[in-house]
Amino acid sequence: MNNKRRMNIKDVAQHVGVHPSTVSRVLNPETRSMVSNEVAKTVLKAAEELGYRRNPLASGLRTQRSHTIGVLIPDLTNPVFPPIVRGIERTLGQEGYISILADSDSDIENERIILERMQERHVDGLILATAHRKDKIVKECIQQNIPFVLVNRTVDNESVMAVVNDDELGIRLALGHLVELGHRRIAYVGGPQDTSTGYTRYRAFIAALHTSGLRTDRDLVVNAKAFSELAGYQALTDILKTRKKFTAVVTANDLLALGCYDTLEERKLSCPDDVSITGFNDMPFISRFVPPLTTLHIPHFDLGVQSAQLLLERIREPDKPAKTVKLEPRLIIRGSTALPSKSKRKK
Amino acid sequence: MNNKRRMNIKDVAQHVGVHPSTVSRVLNPETRSMVSNEVAKTVLKAAEELGYRRNPLASGLRTQRSHTIGVLIPDLTNPVFPPIVRGIERTLGQEGYISILADSDSDIENERIILERMQERHVDGLILATAHRKDKIVKECIQQNIPFVLVNRTVDNESVMAVVNDDELGIRLALGHLVELGHRRIAYVGGPQDTSTGYTRYRAFIAALHTSGLRTDRDLVVNAKAFSELAGYQALTDILKTRKKFTAVVTANDLLALGCYDTLEERKLSCPDDVSITGFNDMPFISRFVPPLTTLHIPHFDLGVQSAQLLLERIREPDKPAKTVKLEPRLIIRGSTALPSKSKRKK
Repeated sequence: MNNKRRMNIKDVAQHVGVHPSTVSRVLNPETRSMVSNEVAKTVLKAAEELGYRRNPLASGLRTQRSHTIGVLIPDLTNPVFPPIVRGIERTLGQEGYISILADSDSDIENERIILERMQERHVDGLILATAHRKDKIVKECIQQNIPFVLVNRTVDNESVMAVVNDDELGIRLALGHLVELGHRRIAYVGGPQDTSTGYTRYRAFIAALHTSGLRTDRDLVVNAKAFSELAGYQALTDILKTRKKFTAVVTANDLLALGCYDTLEERKLSCPDDVSITGFNDMPFISRFVPPLTTLHIPHFDLGVQSAQLLLERIREPDKPAKTVKLEPRLIIRGSTALPSKSKRKK
Repeated sequence: MNNKRRMNIKDVAQHVGVHPSTVSRVLNPETRSMVSNEVAKTVLKAAEELGYRRNPLASGLRTQRSHTIGVLIPDLTNPVFPPIVRGIERTLGQEGYISILADSDSDIENERIILERMQERHVDGLILATAHRKDKIVKECIQQNIPFVLVNRTVDNESVMAVVNDDELGIRLALGHLVELGHRRIAYVGGPQDTSTGYTRYRAFIAALHTSGLRTDRDLVVNAKAFSELAGYQALTDILKTRKKFTAVVTANDLLALGCYDTLEERKLSCPDDVSITGFNDMPFISRFVPPLTTLHIPHFDLGVQSAQLLLERIREPDKPAKTVKLEPRLIIRGSTALPSKSKRKK
């Protein structure tokens, strides 16, 4: 800009011929609807021509808002999270907010340090993708009255705002698909039981077996210590060591399923000829793997959008009751599931 | 905390029996080396026991630093970027900094809005993964004297700090590998020519063909409009339409290579039996695709670490001369490259 002086609201008001408070209302997305569309358009056009830049921080000094949101992710290299982050950012950006993103590497000490730094920067609220079923940090946020929304995972026994997947429905769809194909001996590779996703999916598997009239064989059920390829590999290796027969595996996440692929390859077993496998998440590129994975598609981007919307709602109306939004997953059938082979699996 | 009053530097100093300025030096990672290791340890231990939290923003009021860095990424769902972001964050975090991350969706208007919002929050510097060869935003940062570092891509004709891959070496390695296998008619699917990665890799391909004593056939060289699967699919489809013979394709990026896989599948051509393909980046999971992709491994995490280090250097010593750090890629040979088939490709 050649013009050294920064344009202010009064300059815009004078140019259009309206009161500065009208300009102020138009320039704040939260109050724009109080002004007629026609006036709003004229003001926005003038603001642009004059090179006026709204400073949400200046208005933040009055409203005590920083228009900054902290977003905490357990592992950004897990391909589930980037589209969630994009959804969050896009939604916040439309309302003049910006996000401080941090990756905690699934470490609670990191989480604490990061959250302290975020609070020092006066974030207006938090979106946490890191929740455990019992979560000290969530408890602290409740005690300190910090507006926050949980995304993807939630906590036990607390009244919180959360956007999660319908994990029970997902597991029911996966098991139902395998049963329909004719599988009866079905193993389960689950996730960490201290997360809502790991716990809910495990419980849903046991319940769905029961509903399908199938026997639960505890030797065929292993909950891995992490949602990772290595943990999935180890879990299915442990199941194979029991020498119990099975023709299919339901897993609690795509990375676990990829680890199961590795176990089968090592044992010279074929998927789906010897063993069918289902995943959970429908991570990017999973349709290109060998074989393409049958899995539950979760609406990643939408999880992000809805958690951001919920947080903005909470910031604007802190007294509204808490709610959990559950998004439905969709079964995507690909090449990793097939009819059980006649010549059942032999060790 | 039960204790309502926030512990300050004087409390820690009194507890240890040193001068408050000593505590202050220890608690600031930038000045810690001025104090003996033993004293530093005692102070840090006491600070932790007393529940003292350093507030870099309070010290920022004196030093005019926010200890906040803006990080701008063109597309967080491109799997190359999350590990770069992790490297940046981890490095900044160790020095008490935090990053504001934003995904511009490769849109210059978004970039401008995001950067304005970052500046309003008084970031101490920027890391930009969004640079084009001619980049208005980079120019503005130079004019406004904002400390910044470019990562992955750089600009033409400007003195900037940057951490990039050795793109020329990478392409030479890919072409050399194909020539060694016996390929002579080699096509090229490149990226956008307004980015340094797209332009440098294209120029390197032409130069390396020449060095290898191979003829350049312009019909076999297409630069795609984007680094995406769809753009790669279209580019190789265009090359096939010329009906010119070739037995291998060098691509400028893994996503382009995946798009080429799609073209071959559609034409019922096999990789590597009919056509060998090389990628660039070694994105996560690429070894699981069919066939696993021969590609150039770039040190994603390290790109992030080094760009963060360079930025902190620049902030501390603004007068040091600019420099570009080039990291060497490594050729990873997998299943997508093989000897050229005897029965060359027929349309």
